[in-house]
Amino acid sequence: MSSAPIVVLDSGLGGLTVAAALRQALPYEDILYFGDTARLPYGSKSAQTVTRFVRQIIRFLLPRNPKHVVIACNTATALAMPSLRQSFVGLPISGVIEPGARAAIEAAGAKATPVIGIIATEATIRSKAYDRAILRRRNHARLLLQSTPLLAPIIEEGRTGDDPLVRLALKQYLSPMMQRGMDVLVLGCTHYPILKTTIAKLVGAGVTVIDSAHQCAQDVAARLSRASLLRTDSSHAGDLRCFVTDDSPRFAVLASKFLGMKIDPPTWVAPETLYATDPSAPIREAV
Amino acid sequence: MSSAPIVVLDSGLGGLTVAAALRQALPYEDILYFGDTARLPYGSKSAQTVTRFVRQIIRFLLPRNPKHVVIACNTATALAMPSLRQSFVGLPISGVIEPGARAAIEAAGAKATPVIGIIATEATIRSKAYDRAILRRRNHARLLLQSTPLLAPIIEEGRTGDDPLVRLALKQYLSPMMQRGMDVLVLGCTHYPILKTTIAKLVGAGVTVIDSAHQCAQDVAARLSRASLLRTDSSHAGDLRCFVTDDSPRFAVLASKFLGMKIDPPTWVAPETLYATDPSAPIREAV
Repeated sequence: MSSAPIVVLDSGLGGLTVAAALRQALPYEDILYFGDTARLPYGSKSAQTVTRFVRQIIRFLLPRNPKHVVIACNTATALAMPSLRQSFVGLPISGVIEPGARAAIEAAGAKATPVIGIIATEATIRSKAYDRAILRRRNHARLLLQSTPLLAPIIEEGRTGDDPLVRLALKQYLSPMMQRGMDVLVLGCTHYPILKTTIAKLVGAGVTVIDSAHQCAQDVAARLSRASLLRTDSSHAGDLRCFVTDDSPRFAVLASKFLGMKIDPPTWVAPETLYATDPSAPIREAV
Repeated sequence: MSSAPIVVLDSGLGGLTVAAALRQALPYEDILYFGDTARLPYGSKSAQTVTRFVRQIIRFLLPRNPKHVVIACNTATALAMPSLRQSFVGLPISGVIEPGARAAIEAAGAKATPVIGIIATEATIRSKAYDRAILRRRNHARLLLQSTPLLAPIIEEGRTGDDPLVRLALKQYLSPMMQRGMDVLVLGCTHYPILKTTIAKLVGAGVTVIDSAHQCAQDVAARLSRASLLRTDSSHAGDLRCFVTDDSPRFAVLASKFLGMKIDPPTWVAPETLYATDPSAPIREAV
């Protein structure tokens, strides 16, 4: 057992859906949440830039001795994961894509050529990370990939499923996928679970909707359990502490919505502090 | 006369509408365009963060000895301008808000209490920069302020005025303003001129639509002319060189759309380089 914290990091707010699922699965664990709100979104940016940002955040949090780092952002997982594992040997790091891909395969069941849809940011789709993760397990799966760059801004504006614009955006993105006989739909961005009910209603009961945030939390719980790193002192109520790079009013307003609970005001970390984690040399990219 | 370049800076692509208008107004001038694409958007971020970003960009470009710096971003103008003028004494800096406000007042004409609408990012609206700029000139104007955070992502996705989602978003944002008898509508974000025709059709001929990008370019031309800093050698075809902090495929794809012309591939500037413009001390904020 270990009382060290679990780090959950994201470009902004979306990863809070993972933090919420983690708190539910592991109520005794302390969570350090890092939202890179000064540099968000990651989803329209390049692999090089996103990898650099995530590496800086992990370096910044290393002195807190985390027992596990969760990349709670599909874009960051897709673009940075292999390089991160090389940079931080010995630090357990996991992401959102593998658990989501596994759950999609399970949901597809015994079907010979299941049709699996994935909605995600432009960068996640372009990276082909879901394609690889799914086809490695089921090379007969047929994939429908759709970048949905408006959904995160729509959710961050505070819009909900009863807004006609939200329904129109979802219909525009999802209808072509539905027409091709989709069996499973992966919500490949940690913002999207906020619209899960609306999406599930739109695609109908015949399509299993996979919530990558929920799958990711389950995966972290299983990993910590296997490594005997779970806290066992049930007298300790797990703590959630948030760090942000931009202290805008948005975070406070939206955080409770993403988490389904109130949280303490976040601690502001100047982006300079992150760059200063490696002041001696420019960061070399492995990607 | 001066052959020094004009710097145009923005969080990303939107400022290219200003660069395009500047090239049309001043075809002999060299323009250095800086898009902070690794850290965009600015519109949902705090004054402190945006001011810091813009100051770093200006410091980075100072060695190129610009004769004028245009903050071609409403959010950056709204949040950072007073502090920038303090930081860079002697450097001519202008923004998009004053020219837009002036044009709005002119368009309102002799009406006793003109109703002036402004659409902009959350940060620009929150800053009250347009309110101040307009009310200082016409304290009987009635202002209708509407933050329209989806419009920039919609435009960056490449959507156009014939898309039903674009029309629905515009209708949702603008209908309440139209019902209150708007005389003038200011497009308070340099992305929005891309949708100007659609917006003008929607609000109808009774509402004058002010394009802040166009007004800003006119204002720069007038300032340079007054200061006798315009290039006069009409044999020189003005050059446009772009710098970006994230070299994503988006820039190349969208730039020609924003500019209405092809441009050379942008030069990538690592964000570290910007922070390194002042390595000795943390940047102190005047805001």
